[in-house]
Amino acid sequence: MPELLQGLSAFPLTPVPAGRFDESSFARIIHGIVAAGTDSIGVLGSTGSYMYLDRSVRARAVRTAVREAAGVPVIAGIGAIGTDQVLAHAEDAQAAGAAAVLLAPVTYQALSPDEVQGLFADVCAQLSVPLVVYDNPATTHVQLSTDLYGRLAELPHVAAVKIPPFTTGGADAAAARARIAEVRAAVGSRVRIGISGDAVGALGLVSGCDLWFSAIGGILPAVCTDIVTRAREGRPEEALDASRRLAPLWRLLAVHGSLRLSQAVGELLGIVPAGSLPRPVRGLAGADLAAVAEALRECRLLPRPEGH
Amino acid sequence: MPELLQGLSAFPLTPVPAGRFDESSFARIIHGIVAAGTDSIGVLGSTGSYMYLDRSVRARAVRTAVREAAGVPVIAGIGAIGTDQVLAHAEDAQAAGAAAVLLAPVTYQALSPDEVQGLFADVCAQLSVPLVVYDNPATTHVQLSTDLYGRLAELPHVAAVKIPPFTTGGADAAAARARIAEVRAAVGSRVRIGISGDAVGALGLVSGCDLWFSAIGGILPAVCTDIVTRAREGRPEEALDASRRLAPLWRLLAVHGSLRLSQAVGELLGIVPAGSLPRPVRGLAGADLAAVAEALRECRLLPRPEGH
Repeated sequence: MPELLQGLSAFPLTPVPAGRFDESSFARIIHGIVAAGTDSIGVLGSTGSYMYLDRSVRARAVRTAVREAAGVPVIAGIGAIGTDQVLAHAEDAQAAGAAAVLLAPVTYQALSPDEVQGLFADVCAQLSVPLVVYDNPATTHVQLSTDLYGRLAELPHVAAVKIPPFTTGGADAAAARARIAEVRAAVGSRVRIGISGDAVGALGLVSGCDLWFSAIGGILPAVCTDIVTRAREGRPEEALDASRRLAPLWRLLAVHGSLRLSQAVGELLGIVPAGSLPRPVRGLAGADLAAVAEALRECRLLPRPEGH
Repeated sequence: MPELLQGLSAFPLTPVPAGRFDESSFARIIHGIVAAGTDSIGVLGSTGSYMYLDRSVRARAVRTAVREAAGVPVIAGIGAIGTDQVLAHAEDAQAAGAAAVLLAPVTYQALSPDEVQGLFADVCAQLSVPLVVYDNPATTHVQLSTDLYGRLAELPHVAAVKIPPFTTGGADAAAARARIAEVRAAVGSRVRIGISGDAVGALGLVSGCDLWFSAIGGILPAVCTDIVTRAREGRPEEALDASRRLAPLWRLLAVHGSLRLSQAVGELLGIVPAGSLPRPVRGLAGADLAAVAEALRECRLLPRPEGH
């Protein structure tokens, strides 16, 4: 089981101001993640806008990340609508030095469970690195059943599953443990389980997940490595408390989603240029951006303007 | 108002057996459509698998269609997830001789109405041919409101809206007329209204739609031009009767969708090779394919085997 699939996997933005890949901003984000002590870097996830970028930009982003990551392993998103495109991205990611790949079953036509399994089987047959099954129904519109997790876990190279945020049971600890036990029973002990949905990252870690795939970890990495360290060192209540202190951010995450929130935070902290999201997606502005600034101040991540 | 946006717009499959564009099968499909007397050909729609194909294949498919269409106007799908990709496809389609383009707001991240409007505005600013707004919530996961239709209709180059099948009111004639009147009020008299969802194609035509964007018209074109002719010549009951006689096909359409049904029909009629759908989508086989054969026989579109 690869050691990279533990702790924190931080997902950086891929800034594309005016539609052009901004390599220096991207490198700056990577440096910040590495400095915070992440376990891995998940480039070209949903927060990395993979579905909006040309093949050449995707390959270049992986190469840049590997070069700037100072040995921290890079996991590269390879999702696409057609299997042929997925295979091309997998080849590029491996050639660029990715330590693992991340695959979501992105759809246009609705796919049956057999078609989803066929996609993963076709890709795994061509891989030489571990693969993370990326379950993100909000963007892929595919509902992966727990049973299908089990079928995918049997494929060679499948090393982890990235599960969506807990929604049933109000995200309480007992419900989280029950859900993770259910996934564990399906995928067996060989396959790692990673939580996504940053508001429940700490809950996932203290309830049995092996790692946290974090969008906010890409733009506020130290905040997230702090939570991961507390969980890892056997201080679950501290981890949960640290996460609770970020409640103002989690509220905005529920409204705007990870991509737009990460971009807004990055802009406000001076890490990425405004307008770095790929069209047709637009960034937050006006009152929405001001609310993110206020949330960052409430979380003591941005100083209050003088005189306030 | 372009004359091409009337009557029947037939949507061919783009056969890609083993992942390779099969130009000769595609040309054969185009020839069949032209021979049946269609008003236009809608290449690279959902039935043309546009979202699964590389830019070069998409450009080649438009060139092939224009060359083989003997002057029948070609409408080319240009949808993609990123605006930059849409613009590239628009450029290619126009260079290849497309008479119009068709754009669906394909999503990965959910888009707000303003973001959808921004996409169409960005594309229309670069166009020199008419654009058809393609509303297909089943695949794009975007719900275009009637109000948004109206905003899009104000953009330069927007010449038609392709509306999804009627669902409310059990697809009866009064509900269809009411819905089309509602869309007409939103888009004004300049913009054409086209029905999609083949089971209600005839109903749409006799209830006020200007044209029928038809997937089945791509593989059974004569069946559809027959319906269109009856509607056009003021014989609405005959058009509806002709459509009702295809009920066995419409039932399977509801189960399998246009793409898989068109491919199965094409295989059974010897027009396209088996396995021509782009992975990860798989074609129908076994009992599902046999049911399509039986439906074609019930519709007298395939002879019964001898001795039956």
